[in-house]
Amino acid sequence: MTQQIDEAAMRRAIEAKRDGAELGADTWEGIVAGYLRGTIDDAQMSAMLMVSLWRGLSIDETAALTKAMVESGERIEFPAEQIVVDKHSSGGVSDIVSLVVVPLAAACGARVAKLSGRALGHTGGTIDKLDAIPGLRTALSIEEFIAQVERIGCAIAAQSERLVPADKRLYRLRDRTGTVPSIGLITASILSKKIAGGARAFVFDVKCGPAAFMHRREEAEELARELVAVAGRFDRRARALVTDMSEPLGRSVGTGIEVIEARNFLRGELRDMRVREAALRVAGELLALAGIAHPSESAAHALDSGAAYEKLVAMVEAQGSTRAALEGMALPERSVEALATLDGYVNSIDAVEQGNLARAWSTSESTGGIIVGARIGDRVSRGDVLARGFGSRANAEALQRTFTIASEKPDPRPLVYSCHPERSAEGA
Amino acid sequence: MTQQIDEAAMRRAIEAKRDGAELGADTWEGIVAGYLRGTIDDAQMSAMLMVSLWRGLSIDETAALTKAMVESGERIEFPAEQIVVDKHSSGGVSDIVSLVVVPLAAACGARVAKLSGRALGHTGGTIDKLDAIPGLRTALSIEEFIAQVERIGCAIAAQSERLVPADKRLYRLRDRTGTVPSIGLITASILSKKIAGGARAFVFDVKCGPAAFMHRREEAEELARELVAVAGRFDRRARALVTDMSEPLGRSVGTGIEVIEARNFLRGELRDMRVREAALRVAGELLALAGIAHPSESAAHALDSGAAYEKLVAMVEAQGSTRAALEGMALPERSVEALATLDGYVNSIDAVEQGNLARAWSTSESTGGIIVGARIGDRVSRGDVLARGFGSRANAEALQRTFTIASEKPDPRPLVYSCHPERSAEGA
Repeated sequence: MTQQIDEAAMRRAIEAKRDGAELGADTWEGIVAGYLRGTIDDAQMSAMLMVSLWRGLSIDETAALTKAMVESGERIEFPAEQIVVDKHSSGGVSDIVSLVVVPLAAACGARVAKLSGRALGHTGGTIDKLDAIPGLRTALSIEEFIAQVERIGCAIAAQSERLVPADKRLYRLRDRTGTVPSIGLITASILSKKIAGGARAFVFDVKCGPAAFMHRREEAEELARELVAVAGRFDRRARALVTDMSEPLGRSVGTGIEVIEARNFLRGELRDMRVREAALRVAGELLALAGIAHPSESAAHALDSGAAYEKLVAMVEAQGSTRAALEGMALPERSVEALATLDGYVNSIDAVEQGNLARAWSTSESTGGIIVGARIGDRVSRGDVLARGFGSRANAEALQRTFTIASEKPDPRPLVYSCHPERSAEGA
Repeated sequence: MTQQIDEAAMRRAIEAKRDGAELGADTWEGIVAGYLRGTIDDAQMSAMLMVSLWRGLSIDETAALTKAMVESGERIEFPAEQIVVDKHSSGGVSDIVSLVVVPLAAACGARVAKLSGRALGHTGGTIDKLDAIPGLRTALSIEEFIAQVERIGCAIAAQSERLVPADKRLYRLRDRTGTVPSIGLITASILSKKIAGGARAFVFDVKCGPAAFMHRREEAEELARELVAVAGRFDRRARALVTDMSEPLGRSVGTGIEVIEARNFLRGELRDMRVREAALRVAGELLALAGIAHPSESAAHALDSGAAYEKLVAMVEAQGSTRAALEGMALPERSVEALATLDGYVNSIDAVEQGNLARAWSTSESTGGIIVGARIGDRVSRGDVLARGFGSRANAEALQRTFTIASEKPDPRPLVYSCHPERSAEGA
């Protein structure tokens, strides 16, 4: 039963939330429906978003809001006998995990149906990266998406306008009213799209650190907990990792340049250890959720045998491109070098700035961007190459400024801070 | 220097406020200007209002917002040599103090320039009350208002549309977005209108209790403190009383019926002790601010000599009505009685409900409403008249339900809880 929420009822709901009350599921349903129908305007919705950020949303409220958002549009339905899985990152720099893990998990027998977004702020978007592969289509119809997952085991498509239209409108409003950083609202936004996307199990990679949307560890842990708990309310299995984002995850920053790194990684040409750790961990969790036996061994084998790379090629071909197009992708000719100006240890890398630079440098050439040579903690000598910038707009000085060097070696940081296992619906 | 605030700057301002920052005076000025100009829309303003309610506004911020609001419209200017005073109530039931005190203080030689509003919710509005006097005009032009204060010493006029247009728009938005009860926003709303109204000194009567907008004592004290402190920033002397609103202040509830009570009070026919205490206290503070010697004695004398009543008549005549019209005002013929159903003490009176009933009963006859016979703490016997309802729609049963009777005498409550004296600008 949807409660009809008109202007007066919305005012009372805002006041109740303001005064500390928890709103019922029918109220959240009525709010989303009323907003889409136009009986609730942006002004009232904006007050509700801010009061939700202030007071927080309970798990019940977040689940109710998520459900109302899912019901605002179409839903993708995979055949009931398939355990389709999906993987989501909260957004980072040089986060090539999706590009690696989707074909990797599919090569192990899982069905991976990934709906992805565009870049947000300084972070990369998997759809923007895939768009750099000549001829590749990410605007799959729902029918094409389902058929491709069934046929080759995986697909990565752009979020359809037909799924969760409420999220698009709400996100735009949140963006201009300072109401983005609410754990409850973020959870509802992420999860509504995942649930409408049809997968039965999810792995969430919640990035944490100066180059992530969650700067503080506690916030990231809270988001991870919420994602798993609210997914449980929808009878979806979910695990959430909290991972470090204090420097670029991989070695490349950009769009096409990250596709090249993912391609080379899967072909065994360049295996950055942090990318390997992240990819195997995420793949392992995905495979476990998909019910595949010996997840870790299976993933390592698919990687080393080249099966994962062949699955990437199959996906690229299924989405309208070719092996030759993928393998022909190359770095721009022009490059600049950022050099160490003193001896010492790399103390910090400004990944936010690198994300912004790479975005600018990849506008003229789709494989423009940054290749990071030195990681935090690496010992460097004056004159060593810290990173290379690629593309006609690449600027050595700007790139150099993203590094600080100190005489002391900084404490090492783990890549994976924690893993939140799935819960039963009762445990949520 | 007004800072231009566009959509992006407004988003940053909301985010800064959300994260605990204090916004500068130029930002507040830019926000109000941008809102009136249309570069800031209701959605962003609503988020700013909610975040201001959440985080609170500092005295500096409230003063800056007040100033920006004052500057959104015209200002009334009295001749510099006149110390014009004004009195404001935060809104109550049976609050006839303005009707009594304005002529009373003027009879003592003060110049009282009162701009007043309409009823809000269950509370009465002085303008609605004056409108019940046949022929009386409250829509005075600014020029008429100034001239009348100069000629007879007092005037009560409706808030002009030309003063503080920002307040009207902001209040409408606050009303529907749950952002009314913010001390800072309330202070800016009240004070901007008072300052634009031209008076140099103010007495604020902040009502506190179940029938006031401030239910809790601490909130009322905080509002009183803020009003005095922010007035000081504008070089205005101000005092604020916190007074009880757990039962109707006077003996009558309605519009014309309250004019009759005020008239009779000034004529010496009916002198409710609480009304007398409130009126003499407010008048005393007003006269002290106006620089009149021996305020208390002066006020008591003007009341007892009939000079205050003659000043009321002069004001009524100056605003287009007549002594005969005022003196001819009478209660409606039809009345009903609410009787005590048991022996005991009046334990509570639901003044909110009485305000709502009186509003309904005064729509057909302008002097319809309620005459309260028993006060909280009065001993009553079964069958005693607790109150009378007047007007064709008056309903004895509904009126009776506004009283509760208990066997124990409730603890007495003071009428005036506290007085916040004016501060110098530095002390604010």
